Amino acid sequence: MDKLCIIGVGLIGGCLALAQRQAGFRGEIVGCDRDGSALEEALALGIIDRAEVEPARAVAGADTVVVAVPVGAMEAVFAAIAPHLDPGAVITDVGSTKASVVTAARSVWSSLPPGFVPAHPIAGTEKSGVGAAFPTLFRGRKVILTPLPETSPAALERVRTLWRDTGAEVVVMPVAHHDEVLAATSHLPHLLAFTLVDTLARMDDSWEIFRYAAGGFRDFTRIASSDPVMWHDICFANREAILGVLTRLEEDLDTLRAAIDRGDGEYVKAVFQRAKRARDHFSTIFIEQP
Amino acid sequence: MDKLCIIGVGLIGGCLALAQRQAGFRGEIVGCDRDGSALEEALALGIIDRAEVEPARAVAGADTVVVAVPVGAMEAVFAAIAPHLDPGAVITDVGSTKASVVTAARSVWSSLPPGFVPAHPIAGTEKSGVGAAFPTLFRGRKVILTPLPETSPAALERVRTLWRDTGAEVVVMPVAHHDEVLAATSHLPHLLAFTLVDTLARMDDSWEIFRYAAGGFRDFTRIASSDPVMWHDICFANREAILGVLTRLEEDLDTLRAAIDRGDGEYVKAVFQRAKRARDHFSTIFIEQP
Ligand SMILES: NC(=O)c1ccc[n+]([C@@H]2O[C@H](COP(=O)([O-])OP(=O)(O)OC[C@H]3O[C@@H](n4cnc5c(N)ncnc54)[C@H](OP(=O)(O)O)[C@@H]3O)[C@@H](O)[C@H]2O)c1
Ligand SMILES: NC(=O)c1ccc[n+]([C@@H]2O[C@H](COP(=O)([O-])OP(=O)(O)OC[C@H]3O[C@@H](n4cnc5c(N)ncnc54)[C@H](OP(=O)(O)O)[C@@H]3O)[C@@H](O)[C@H]2O)c1
Repeated sequence: MDKLCIIGVGLIGGCLALAQRQAGFRGEIVGCDRDGSALEEALALGIIDRAEVEPARAVAGADTVVVAVPVGAMEAVFAAIAPHLDPGAVITDVGSTKASVVTAARSVWSSLPPGFVPAHPIAGTEKSGVGAAFPTLFRGRKVILTPLPETSPAALERVRTLWRDTGAEVVVMPVAHHDEVLAATSHLPHLLAFTLVDTLARMDDSWEIFRYAAGGFRDFTRIASSDPVMWHDICFANREAILGVLTRLEEDLDTLRAAIDRGDGEYVKAVFQRAKRARDHFSTIFIEQP
Repeated sequence: MDKLCIIGVGLIGGCLALAQRQAGFRGEIVGCDRDGSALEEALALGIIDRAEVEPARAVAGADTVVVAVPVGAMEAVFAAIAPHLDPGAVITDVGSTKASVVTAARSVWSSLPPGFVPAHPIAGTEKSGVGAAFPTLFRGRKVILTPLPETSPAALERVRTLWRDTGAEVVVMPVAHHDEVLAATSHLPHLLAFTLVDTLARMDDSWEIFRYAAGGFRDFTRIASSDPVMWHDICFANREAILGVLTRLEEDLDTLRAAIDRGDGEYVKAVFQRAKRARDHFSTIFIEQP
């Protein structure tokens, strides 16, 4: 890899650039964003070497292009870069949903380039923007690659190395499996957190309510500070899988409410016990990080 | 205060004992618990000076008695200590719900002792047991006191000082207000976290799901590791208030699901934007602590 082009110089794009630098990448990092101030900030912070507003100029000569915009903007970016890509270029993304990104790519390229490798780093924060970027975000985290039948082994290897260099563990799985797993562990919790905070904020005494919130509430609702546009995009990009788990959750919540209502303590205790057991077990496989 | 008796030597009782010691309390701390191993552990850790299994012996001569058992066990403990309390003793608790504790007290004492001061430290962790206790849990946190018409000003002052010494900010409010506020910011989030983890744990590929969970999921579900018995008790002790906010949340969640289903992006974005604004605002009034 000699020239890395990052389109969408925000939190994830910025973290990747910093991680690559820290891993010893000596080539050029070109940043491209529709937001001029993000580019200026990235240049000032030394995160990118060169800034381009035009995707055509940004990708020219790049051997690796990473698209790090919200998933709803992927198709427009693919269309803008497609005519200008180098023949051997590897194109990858960081989108939180994968089927939608693949659909976007298929509608731009009549036949998908063998250099196209969909990817998703399972790491992030509730902050957005390149100003919040730091080099160690991906360390010890997983990055999921969902290569397609058209994907060349060489391109897959390039993207695997790109992420392994950041300290991440790279995992390969099918597109649909990715979207179902992430609907459950990421998309659904975000919907719950957004909804809970909005429900409470619309109550008459919401200020009074938030005043007495403790650490549990702070942790539980941290993800409700995430970017609304990014999460709007994810909701519709992974709609079917999200509706599937959301419906299940609603049913279970309703059954729990009914049990509390009728005073069925055994049912309630059983739910809490199963949940605690699963969460405690889960925390043993999950590397606790700051 | 010369002799402090703590009944229920678990996380909260242990933290209070340690905090009092650190604040310079030189009198005797007597611990009482039905769990002999908890008492042994507390003695070994130097958290209590003396251990008693019999409540009658534990409270004899104590000027301050703190009941720190699950809220469902409060009535039995009050009944066990009532005949043995010193005439001028202050009796307080740490229960997460207040109306139920007051009801328990009223059913034990035909007329409430003026020394009775219901209290709730808004601080905790998902761990339980005295082994997880540490002296700084209450520092910078709020403690809510809900004194009753029968409560004497002197008893209120004693409990205020007890908690102020731990570094907490003491706030006074009516019982019913406490229970509504806590239903919203503490009890409801716990129910959501328990339910989400249980819903996912019961899915066929639950192991696979948890494997790819990231930091957001870890934080969101941390409270699902809390003690099932304690939370069972809280559910039924504050049933009406919990059912009230839970029903509102279910309605809002259902409206959001319908909006995603029909592709109403504006609605979804508006919910996320309001939630982010409220959460960001809330984090400015909430002291972020490790
Ligand atoms: N944040 C996370 O936790 C996380 C984790 C894993 C994956 N992801 C995925 O990573 C991607 C980026 O997320 P992020 O958190 O880095 O977001 P971010 O900090 O908001 O950065 C996204 C950047 O892309 C720019 N952009 C938006 N539309 C564009 C377009 N059509 N052309 C060019 N640039 C455009 C944005 O500019 P404007 O400010 O003008 O919109 C912004 O500078 C998303 O697909 C997200 O799903 C995020
Ligand atoms: N943890 C929190 O985050 C938190 C925060 C604020 C307030 N609170 C409240 O604080 C109280 C204690 O919670 P905790 O977290 O400290 O629980 P914990 O660590 O489980 O400690 C409770 C202790 O009370 C003992 N106990 C139970 N029933 C008893 C009885 N009938 N007689 C004597 N001892 C009995 C338990 O023994 P066994 O182990 O044998 O049951 C245990 O040792 C609860 O009312 C809770 O609502 C908790």
